Amino acid sequence: MNGEDALVRAIRALAATRNGTGGVRVGIGDDCAVLEPRSDVALLATTDLMIEDVHFRRRWAEPADIGWKSIAVNLSDIAAMGGRPRWALVALACPEGTSAEEIEAFYEGALAVARAHQVAIVGGDTSASPSGWLINVTLLGEAATPRLRSTARAGDTVAVTGTLGRAAAGLAVLERETAPAEVDAAQLAELTAAHLRPTARVAEGAWLAGAGGVTAMMDLSDGLGIDLPRLLGESGVGAEVDVDRVPVDASTRAVAAALRGDATAWATGGGEDYELLLTCDSTAFERLQQGLADAHGTRLTRIGTIKTGAPAVRWTSRGQVVSVARGFEHFTGRPAAGGART
Amino acid sequence: MNGEDALVRAIRALAATRNGTGGVRVGIGDDCAVLEPRSDVALLATTDLMIEDVHFRRRWAEPADIGWKSIAVNLSDIAAMGGRPRWALVALACPEGTSAEEIEAFYEGALAVARAHQVAIVGGDTSASPSGWLINVTLLGEAATPRLRSTARAGDTVAVTGTLGRAAAGLAVLERETAPAEVDAAQLAELTAAHLRPTARVAEGAWLAGAGGVTAMMDLSDGLGIDLPRLLGESGVGAEVDVDRVPVDASTRAVAAALRGDATAWATGGGEDYELLLTCDSTAFERLQQGLADAHGTRLTRIGTIKTGAPAVRWTSRGQVVSVARGFEHFTGRPAAGGART
Repeated sequence: MNGEDALVRAIRALAATRNGTGGVRVGIGDDCAVLEPRSDVALLATTDLMIEDVHFRRRWAEPADIGWKSIAVNLSDIAAMGGRPRWALVALACPEGTSAEEIEAFYEGALAVARAHQVAIVGGDTSASPSGWLINVTLLGEAATPRLRSTARAGDTVAVTGTLGRAAAGLAVLERETAPAEVDAAQLAELTAAHLRPTARVAEGAWLAGAGGVTAMMDLSDGLGIDLPRLLGESGVGAEVDVDRVPVDASTRAVAAALRGDATAWATGGGEDYELLLTCDSTAFERLQQGLADAHGTRLTRIGTIKTGAPAVRWTSRGQVVSVARGFEHFTGRPAAGGART
Repeated sequence: MNGEDALVRAIRALAATRNGTGGVRVGIGDDCAVLEPRSDVALLATTDLMIEDVHFRRRWAEPADIGWKSIAVNLSDIAAMGGRPRWALVALACPEGTSAEEIEAFYEGALAVARAHQVAIVGGDTSASPSGWLINVTLLGEAATPRLRSTARAGDTVAVTGTLGRAAAGLAVLERETAPAEVDAAQLAELTAAHLRPTARVAEGAWLAGAGGVTAMMDLSDGLGIDLPRLLGESGVGAEVDVDRVPVDASTRAVAAALRGDATAWATGGGEDYELLLTCDSTAFERLQQGLADAHGTRLTRIGTIKTGAPAVRWTSRGQVVSVARGFEHFTGRPAAGGART
């Protein structure tokens, strides 16, 4: 029994007490997990890297936060298809000197969010890392009728769940030595949590996929200014979006005012909000908006319209075309999260 | 369209021309891959990290080698269950300054081995890396009756496919500035390839799982001295293994002689051979040995016997118990590949 095996044993014991067990014939401890997917639905698979100093900084992200987020960002991909998340594989590499407590805290964070979504951690890998922490999570899920990026049609309404820019505002707060005194402590805590422990819209995604009228859907991981063109590219359509309609909450505006940040730029270019971006039949929008509010208390906001033409966004403000590429400095074409899903 | 999207587009184009397409409704390009598993078999899932300077060195591993190996080590896990590999998710992070050609070569290497096994690359992730290359591959497969580690029984025969120590011998050659002149160039090339581009025993695993009589199976990634105790631990049994029966080929012996290495230590502690370790009904061994040779030309060697008792190996040589922990310096409890599958 060596040190790595002792670690695997500890992870397995944690997972055994915390995991859901549905559809798991063999979990952690063999060459592969052995799973039993439902036969009447499609299998969904997604994977995300999280790398120290690319996706997070240890200065403010605790191991439990990192574990939480590594699962949450993958849940968001399943949510974007309207799917039900089921099984996760968690690979973790840590630098020499990482304590057993830190590693356990990482898995506690991962298991907390996994359990809340009835996801079982069924396998993974551990390794030494020559530099910082690095994590890869693969999440498997199921969906009867997955919503795709490639099926938006001219005339559809473009909408987003929740409000945007919160994670960027939270990051701006974390990056400062001291918290801005002008902003309420509860608002600050809520925004930093939005960055450190994002909530994936799993229930909302499933509801929207089943409600009828949603034509395409994806999650907002890199920001509207990068993600919407991806949806347009897959669908072969364009869009017009009213920048002033992009929903931004009061906390984000308060932090922007205090830090002289640009709340609109955070909302369109900040990334990591893990809200859902969707297109729907324009006649279905109000029904979806009301239904989502009733079912989950979550806001759905109409921000624009799908157009025929090249897969680009025509951004407007008060009826005028605005040049977001110039207006918002985040629009440099560099994903906020440092990467792109393939 | 930004740089990362251009990369994803290039990967997708490569995958589209090279991939098998069975059971893939949506591949690269959406939030998740959408897959259609068979309903009459179990789903297998495995994941492996490969990190520069932990699992490989760029000094001798070309991008195409790294891509190849990242798929091959996961194929080996599917092989160990007797499964059929189907779909891969490939996450890659590279340091700044990595050229598009290097990244394309990585995917070419991965696709070459994937295609040879009818595996489709259906998704992944890309990222910047603050230090070296790092890769995570998740492989999904299917098996009617997966072979486990936990089902060995006292009295079973312990056996391995192929010969052991080849990858360690190859690594020893690569680590030198100059090749040992005493060893034939073809033998050297074969051993360095065993390290850089291992061959997973996928066909052999499937044959063995279907032949009847195999009671437990796993792959040898960290070496017999570490992996066999894992199988014993899962099964709650012990084993006696005759060190002199562990199969070592002439090339490995020639390199050991030239470099004053210990071929037996390489075979038991070197790791990364990706051969199969199995237990079988003692009465079935000769049938399995002959059948595997006939079906795939692959050697199966009896090296010991499963015993009741604590999950440890009693190593013997010429009838005497030998203390491998002292005898073989690799038996320090540190996995050769720098990690442990959970």
